[in-house]
Amino acid sequence: MVDHSFYDNKGPFTLECISNKIGCDLHGDKNKIIKDISTIEHANSSEICFLVNKYKEYFNKSKAGAFITNDKEGLNEKKKNLIFSTNPHFDMAKVASLFYPNTEYPSFFFSDKHKLKKVDRSIKVSDSSFIHKSAKIGEKSEIGYNTIIGPGVVIGRNSLIGDNVSIYFSLIGNNVKIYQGVKLGSEGFGFIMNKNNFKKIPQLGRVIVGNDVEIGANSTVDRGSIGDTEIGDSCMIDNIVHLGHNVKLGNNCIIAAMTGISGSTTIGNNVIIGGQVGISGHIKIGNNVTIAAKTGVMKDIEDNNVIAGYPSEKIQDWHRNTIILKNLRKYGKKK
Amino acid sequence: MVDHSFYDNKGPFTLECISNKIGCDLHGDKNKIIKDISTIEHANSSEICFLVNKYKEYFNKSKAGAFITNDKEGLNEKKKNLIFSTNPHFDMAKVASLFYPNTEYPSFFFSDKHKLKKVDRSIKVSDSSFIHKSAKIGEKSEIGYNTIIGPGVVIGRNSLIGDNVSIYFSLIGNNVKIYQGVKLGSEGFGFIMNKNNFKKIPQLGRVIVGNDVEIGANSTVDRGSIGDTEIGDSCMIDNIVHLGHNVKLGNNCIIAAMTGISGSTTIGNNVIIGGQVGISGHIKIGNNVTIAAKTGVMKDIEDNNVIAGYPSEKIQDWHRNTIILKNLRKYGKKK
Amino acid sequence: MVDHSFYDNKGPFTLECISNKIGCDLHGDKNKIIKDISTIEHANSSEICFLVNKYKEYFNKSKAGAFITNDKEGLNEKKKNLIFSTNPHFDMAKVASLFYPNTEYPSFFFSDKHKLKKVDRSIKVSDSSFIHKSAKIGEKSEIGYNTIIGPGVVIGRNSLIGDNVSIYFSLIGNNVKIYQGVKLGSEGFGFIMNKNNFKKIPQLGRVIVGNDVEIGANSTVDRGSIGDTEIGDSCMIDNIVHLGHNVKLGNNCIIAAMTGISGSTTIGNNVIIGGQVGISGHIKIGNNVTIAAKTGVMKDIEDNNVIAGYPSEKIQDWHRNTIILKNLRKYGKKK
Repeated sequence: MVDHSFYDNKGPFTLECISNKIGCDLHGDKNKIIKDISTIEHANSSEICFLVNKYKEYFNKSKAGAFITNDKEGLNEKKKNLIFSTNPHFDMAKVASLFYPNTEYPSFFFSDKHKLKKVDRSIKVSDSSFIHKSAKIGEKSEIGYNTIIGPGVVIGRNSLIGDNVSIYFSLIGNNVKIYQGVKLGSEGFGFIMNKNNFKKIPQLGRVIVGNDVEIGANSTVDRGSIGDTEIGDSCMIDNIVHLGHNVKLGNNCIIAAMTGISGSTTIGNNVIIGGQVGISGHIKIGNNVTIAAKTGVMKDIEDNNVIAGYPSEKIQDWHRNTIILKNLRKYGKKK
Repeated sequence: MVDHSFYDNKGPFTLECISNKIGCDLHGDKNKIIKDISTIEHANSSEICFLVNKYKEYFNKSKAGAFITNDKEGLNEKKKNLIFSTNPHFDMAKVASLFYPNTEYPSFFFSDKHKLKKVDRSIKVSDSSFIHKSAKIGEKSEIGYNTIIGPGVVIGRNSLIGDNVSIYFSLIGNNVKIYQGVKLGSEGFGFIMNKNNFKKIPQLGRVIVGNDVEIGANSTVDRGSIGDTEIGDSCMIDNIVHLGHNVKLGNNCIIAAMTGISGSTTIGNNVIIGGQVGISGHIKIGNNVTIAAKTGVMKDIEDNNVIAGYPSEKIQDWHRNTIILKNLRKYGKKK
Repeated sequence: MVDHSFYDNKGPFTLECISNKIGCDLHGDKNKIIKDISTIEHANSSEICFLVNKYKEYFNKSKAGAFITNDKEGLNEKKKNLIFSTNPHFDMAKVASLFYPNTEYPSFFFSDKHKLKKVDRSIKVSDSSFIHKSAKIGEKSEIGYNTIIGPGVVIGRNSLIGDNVSIYFSLIGNNVKIYQGVKLGSEGFGFIMNKNNFKKIPQLGRVIVGNDVEIGANSTVDRGSIGDTEIGDSCMIDNIVHLGHNVKLGNNCIIAAMTGISGSTTIGNNVIIGGQVGISGHIKIGNNVTIAAKTGVMKDIEDNNVIAGYPSEKIQDWHRNTIILKNLRKYGKKK
């Protein structure tokens, strides 16, 4: 689940070692070898994940090699390896830091010795840009001034990257345009309360951008926390747009300026989103949905709806609200 | 209409050549020479424009040498050159790409050989900034670190440009302050649906900034699509503001942080706009208008109004809405 | 009150000199030496401040050496030095420019000769970044590519500064993470109307950032106008957030993406603010307050409240508004 071309795994560890490091009780095979972290849906038998109530439905069919959980009832009868924790989110973040200690915070330090020296002659790289020697740039692509392309980043053919851009942990398709000041692969807003402080959750995902995508100036796209942030083919994204970690955007979507989409929300295909829209995290917007400017979306929206308002409603209901208040104002004056 | 100091025109073309390239029928003089593209209001007799219903009133008085139109009725009796298209917007974008193939997407590639070597001694240019050799910087102006001033840009006297700024296709007055991270002349959000993909409309306009203007950190101002984005004299613009393509801002306007104005909207003089306001495209805001923070403006506003809410209303009506809902809540509780 | 490690004071001046320069009448000791400017609350006996109605309560206990005021009644009986002005804000700005003429606008011009050459070996500074020779970077800190650290800036231990960042007039704690494209210490949105033009108020404050703070990509934090903008310990700030001049943020606050807080507003400890929230200037938010996404806050909020809506209300009232309108729509349909 974690892409080791971007993130350096310090494992494997035995379950005993892991449970000792995080100070939690282990119920299961202490010699079990754990090679990586994952999610309950995607983990294989050598990976560890965490389990809280809302993911309980996945527990029985999960192939994970071990679970960090706060649920002592019912679970310990199964033949699975369990680590009991009062705060599974927090202890999972500690395990992530154990496997990936160097990536708890990304490094922004680079010098000339990290710099890619030679590129294909069809590629134009502006002076004063930095391309890491492990990055790959497709033919006929062009990189603006003062732009940073981080380690392992892959950019497809015929793509255009503006100036003052910063790209990390990203795989980008062909014919993509990333305009001035965009930050791709920035830190997801993920942390766990730990007494009076916050523990950062290592952000171990990527940003995957399809073909024929445009991203407007000064927009930010956070990389996935675990798993990826994804932008489908032929999406048009305006200036100063924010996409949170693990957002999935379908194909042919249009997002106008200053819209923000919170972490782990999924957007279908052919979705049109106006300016200054806000969409909550962990929800699902269907296909062919149109969202009016300034809408605040807090719940799932089915295919083919046109919505507006905050909290969002069908657009005709939003218009009716305006008329109702207008009539009430008139009525109030008459009295 | 297109400024050839910024954009390289590959014309002229005959009307026959143009209609063949876009695969549309021509009704008129096939040998007519067309030198440039323009809008129906501004085109001269050697320029081509497009015509859809909402611009019909301009048709009779337009001096354009040819029109791309979807309206076969009534129009072909006049002695004008017409190219019939089922999608005039789309075919006009193709004609724009024909005249300006290199500017369908701007180039962000520059090297030291494109760099301005000598500037007037009164001008201070920070190390590591790039100023294109065809740009002009007025005396006593100052350019911050890691800033890019693109080809043909003109900056007046005594102006201050911060660091990590990017300026393209812009003419800037005197005593202007452009703060850190501003992107001036970025891509307008203009494209046409083409089956399941989008065709970019070449953005062939400029940004014109008057005197004594300030633009706050990380703001973006898109250049005109065809024609210009304009900021009048003595405008004060806060951080993280977005102005779309072809926005016209009068003199002495104040725009607070995080406000966005969509394409082709016109704002009068002495307009005060609060933070996080959104204004739709193609509307007109009069002089001396005040717009409360977070307002969403969807229609024209006459001079001297104070507005608030979404959709926007007179501010006293917006306050009444709050009181009405408060009273209804009380009433609901009593029952 | 003004930190002279950042701002160069051209004083002292006699009161006679000051009143002459701004063309106002002096009532008091013309030979009185004034060394600096300050606010009515913090001024000492060699400092000048301004006094308008809303600060009148501070007048009697203020230790200021002189006051610029428009209030001729009642005040001149006291044994204080007064300069009478029809526009104290405007004339105070002129006095600020008299003491700090070079800082009316900050300089963004730097060359290699201003550059810090040697740093502690535990500090990693990327190529192509600029650190001013008067800045101080704590051990084990790391600075990204194309980043500018201005004169006098202090950064604590083990802090991480991303690429394309710009930091001026700031004192930053330990274990702080400032991500890509952040502008810290940018210009406050402060100016005074002067006939048909605006006079900039010199921004003479700082940004003070505590320990264990994170600030997300492309966010902007303006420095104080006079006095400081402050971010407490352990605050987590998401991408594209704007904090105005003199905002005070307590400890352990969380601010989600695209939220803006206007100048001089004070936020308590443990405050959680959703995305796209707007908070007016000069108000006070208590401790342990939670503010839902997209809320517009226009007045003080007491401790422990959960608020939503615009204008903001208790969140249950905001939800009731939605239900009331839904019921009214149903009722309208039945009729």
